[in-house]
Amino acid sequence: MTTDRERAVFEAAIKLGALYHQWVGTPISRQSAGSVETAIEKAVILQPFVEEITVNLDRSLMTENRFGYSELSGLMFNVEIVTRVGFSYCHARLAPEKGYPFMSIVECNEIPGIPCH
Amino acid sequence: MTTDRERAVFEAAIKLGALYHQWVGTPISRQSAGSVETAIEKAVILQPFVEEITVNLDRSLMTENRFGYSELSGLMFNVEIVTRVGFSYCHARLAPEKGYPFMSIVECNEIPGIPCH
Amino acid sequence: MTTDRERAVFEAAIKLGALYHQWVGTPISRQSAGSVETAIEKAVILQPFVEEITVNLDRSLMTENRFGYSELSGLMFNVEIVTRVGFSYCHARLAPEKGYPFMSIVECNEIPGIPCH
Amino acid sequence: MTTDRERAVFEAAIKLGALYHQWVGTPISRQSAGSVETAIEKAVILQPFVEEITVNLDRSLMTENRFGYSELSGLMFNVEIVTRVGFSYCHARLAPEKGYPFMSIVECNEIPGIPCH
Repeated sequence: MTTDRERAVFEAAIKLGALYHQWVGTPISRQSAGSVETAIEKAVILQPFVEEITVNLDRSLMTENRFGYSELSGLMFNVEIVTRVGFSYCHARLAPEKGYPFMSIVECNEIPGIPCH
Repeated sequence: MTTDRERAVFEAAIKLGALYHQWVGTPISRQSAGSVETAIEKAVILQPFVEEITVNLDRSLMTENRFGYSELSGLMFNVEIVTRVGFSYCHARLAPEKGYPFMSIVECNEIPGIPCH
Repeated sequence: MTTDRERAVFEAAIKLGALYHQWVGTPISRQSAGSVETAIEKAVILQPFVEEITVNLDRSLMTENRFGYSELSGLMFNVEIVTRVGFSYCHARLAPEKGYPFMSIVECNEIPGIPCH
Repeated sequence: MTTDRERAVFEAAIKLGALYHQWVGTPISRQSAGSVETAIEKAVILQPFVEEITVNLDRSLMTENRFGYSELSGLMFNVEIVTRVGFSYCHARLAPEKGYPFMSIVECNEIPGIPCH
């Protein structure tokens, strides 16, 4: 048996793994980064169990190649996501940690359901 | 020896092949489609030799799955691109043709260079 | 605080979300499907916390387009994965369910650690 | 009007752009690199107008992250492709050039058709 809390964790991780591999490699620049952040957020929020998503791409890493642009790489991602299953929430994150694009659970919470009288 | 015209053709096709495989599979809906169109256009225009790019994603194909969204598929793409190498232009296209997402050269043109006196 | 069990769930889901979006859209046929299965398995097993992974791609869905091949789509995936964090295991799955490529937790287990004397 | 030669150029470039963005980001190691090379070759050869494709991924760039693997990046690709349209062939390449994953036309050739008597 899995709990709502475990399923909230599961759903958060699916979305982080998915968005990473969907968008990594996209040509990007400091000027276009905002459009990619918006597109990712709007794509992820469509998916089941997602309550909130924010995407910040690290422009300081967008160094220009000889054609004047960069490529979206793992270490540029700073993503916070909140999923909900039943009354359980999971807040998870994708962010650089010691040179690796690291996905982790920030915290899980249960909110009390509406009591029955 | 390759000509500028051939290189313009080559560059147009690189971009069409690239954007197709970069973006296919993205979760999408009629509401979010505009953000994906913008993100693709802004990513492609960064790349060398691209003069113009327009992306229209066919919303009529965005039927909702049981979670209320769709996935960007090949037949949704309607893309027009113009590349330039030297004084040669190539206009190419990605659009459905007989049930297949078809990439083709629309036309190539040379413009006269500035004459030397 | 998150438990090992929750982290095993989290890691399994990352891998399922990741492989889906990494590989969807790949040109494929019944003849080449085995090479894609192998490549996915070898890519996933590299990642941290993965104990086992099997990928079966549904050849019956690989209908040929007019050029004689197909494209890897979500419903073709049948994936079983087992992750381990500490003494907790998570077995998760990606498989079609009612026309949707569905990711779910099959079961989680804890094995007893070695007792200290 | 486009010539067979131009169309052979166009088809070669589609495949190079496509494979780059399909596979970049894949988890990879020196041990698994062969399976990815095979999967890419078998996927590309399926596509129309492709006569030959060889993929060599530069293992010297596959430095291990702290989890012991690497990610397929643009500079690892060494790809040679030959396309044919009618009696025209195009040999094109994806290979690193001055720190950029560069796609270029190597040469185009026409072979004589069978003369009519």
